[in-house]
Amino acid sequence: MKTDREYMQLALDLAASAKGNTNPNPVVGAVLVKDGLIVGTGLHRKAGEPHAEVHAFNMAGEHAKGATLYVTLEPCSHFGKTPPCANLVKESEVSRVVVATMDPNPSVAGRGIRLLQEAGIQVEVGVLEEEARKLNERFIHNMLTSRPFVISKFAMTLDGKIATHTGHSKWITSEEARLQVHELRNEVDAILVGIGTVLADNPSLTTRLPHREGKNPIRVILDSELKTPLDANIVNTIDASTIIVCGPNVEAAKVSQLQEKGVKVISVTKNDHGLDLEEMLNELYKNGITDVLVEGGAEVNASFLRAGLINKFLAYVSPKILGGRKSKTPFTGIEVDTIDEALQLEIDSVEKIGPDLCITAYPKLGKTK
Amino acid sequence: MKTDREYMQLALDLAASAKGNTNPNPVVGAVLVKDGLIVGTGLHRKAGEPHAEVHAFNMAGEHAKGATLYVTLEPCSHFGKTPPCANLVKESEVSRVVVATMDPNPSVAGRGIRLLQEAGIQVEVGVLEEEARKLNERFIHNMLTSRPFVISKFAMTLDGKIATHTGHSKWITSEEARLQVHELRNEVDAILVGIGTVLADNPSLTTRLPHREGKNPIRVILDSELKTPLDANIVNTIDASTIIVCGPNVEAAKVSQLQEKGVKVISVTKNDHGLDLEEMLNELYKNGITDVLVEGGAEVNASFLRAGLINKFLAYVSPKILGGRKSKTPFTGIEVDTIDEALQLEIDSVEKIGPDLCITAYPKLGKTK
Repeated sequence: MKTDREYMQLALDLAASAKGNTNPNPVVGAVLVKDGLIVGTGLHRKAGEPHAEVHAFNMAGEHAKGATLYVTLEPCSHFGKTPPCANLVKESEVSRVVVATMDPNPSVAGRGIRLLQEAGIQVEVGVLEEEARKLNERFIHNMLTSRPFVISKFAMTLDGKIATHTGHSKWITSEEARLQVHELRNEVDAILVGIGTVLADNPSLTTRLPHREGKNPIRVILDSELKTPLDANIVNTIDASTIIVCGPNVEAAKVSQLQEKGVKVISVTKNDHGLDLEEMLNELYKNGITDVLVEGGAEVNASFLRAGLINKFLAYVSPKILGGRKSKTPFTGIEVDTIDEALQLEIDSVEKIGPDLCITAYPKLGKTK
Repeated sequence: MKTDREYMQLALDLAASAKGNTNPNPVVGAVLVKDGLIVGTGLHRKAGEPHAEVHAFNMAGEHAKGATLYVTLEPCSHFGKTPPCANLVKESEVSRVVVATMDPNPSVAGRGIRLLQEAGIQVEVGVLEEEARKLNERFIHNMLTSRPFVISKFAMTLDGKIATHTGHSKWITSEEARLQVHELRNEVDAILVGIGTVLADNPSLTTRLPHREGKNPIRVILDSELKTPLDANIVNTIDASTIIVCGPNVEAAKVSQLQEKGVKVISVTKNDHGLDLEEMLNELYKNGITDVLVEGGAEVNASFLRAGLINKFLAYVSPKILGGRKSKTPFTGIEVDTIDEALQLEIDSVEKIGPDLCITAYPKLGKTK
């Protein structure tokens, strides 16, 4: 007989296996246990497909009666693309439901749980809650803010440099670390860079994985003056869609030329620091983008930093010392005078990837929007 | 009955407990085991005092006969301040000696072991050798190069900044991390900064520990033009000695004034990049300094980097994002054009210290002098 935590861990592992495939939905895993035996397992594979609980009950059949359901997210109580799972749970006559975390949507949180309790089912909430919330950090952020979850990723030497004075940066990190970044591109809805990166490197920003086809995120270019050349790779490679975000006063002819090539052009207002990034994120979310991987350059990174819009930092650190007065660093932008004005983070994990490190950190609570 | 590795680990732990106290000698630990019982333990406490083996044999008395000796460094074969340990081991009639690593001094390496083998004692070398060599990395470097072991320490934000554009840096890292740096100062013979740091911060560069008195390292200032003010803290605080390293053509009167205040002034030649750091290290070693903690600033760090003279890097990384085009970074100096010209390191360990990380890294073999 295993513990609640062990069964919930399995449910979380099932959920995690679908990461990147369920957007805009959360990832969810479910495990049904009766008399110490796992009688049903399920996970939500993709938006529009059945929820995790449905698969678990289908597998369990009549064994569900009197079983315990472990589910990583509160069963839904509303009719969406599928009927409410809370009803299904009630009808299945399970005797106990263990939930990792409540629905993050404030308007429905707790409703599914109350439905079950009213039907006489014993409900426990909060087993491996922190892990469950981290697994759905993107979804939770979406529900609370109606904006995409923003991940800032950069790769630097151990002395904090992302390129030499000439802009040379191939390669700061190892092949292993670069592959991990492509795995990340494969998971997110959008990848964002500034026009500076487009003009300097002419990247294609697609997902390249060694043994399987990757999913290409939507390419978002911050280009306030609409300087993107018509022959740029991000305009002409058809493997991925492109959104160019510009300011209010741009040449209509250029907009048309880009649109003819299949590029979506979104215009947002400008503020003292350039494009209004909050407005831009709202627009991206309306376009179905639930998370954005910001890959620089340093000025773009700094704009997101100053706007308080970064939700997660991924710092790849390569064991190299570069030096140089004019070498580039990952965040530039406007100066602050004292260290107290830096954005305070908390380190979540440090992972060794080949010879490099990947440091994951989050802004301290209340420090971002 | 424990394994050879377990007994050697105990000997290494004994050795490590004296770290920082034995300079210029290595740290050494010894354990005597007979019939599965530890009958003797010892460590080298301080230069001039008995070697580890002597303490272990004193403790064991007649139990040493037929025992196994675990010792972290090859027993010495020469008459120094104390008689050769290899003779003592022979006379003690132990039946077996297990050695972690050979004497790093090329002119005597293997001699102690041969002495024992010729006396019919079974000798094994190489148990936990890597750990033993790391523990005495300073001593091994001294023996091979006749120069101090150079540690470069810096503290930066997660975006690679050591100060704001105004030079403000209080505090990048947490109290816990700063305390660890004082523990490090307590262990090394010398701490080195550039004249820029003296003029900007007027530091006293002493060891401050909360619950005990620390040992102050010798303060070494790189000051090619002898600009150190006579009222600087490093000149006037008498708790620690100070060496100022200058170029060949400095004002004799200033030298006298500094000497009158008890400061030692060492003049070295200049090369294209400033003071000849290799010559300076040779001089420091002649003055009994076996290791140097280089604490910046960024130009001094870069000078050591370009001269290929850094043996170990300690990067304290604080979870903060500072940004700023003019913020300071840990290594500046001359530019290189491509990433391939960066110094390649290998990460040895990553330690969490309070909210911060301490990343320890070494140059890849053959990349430093």
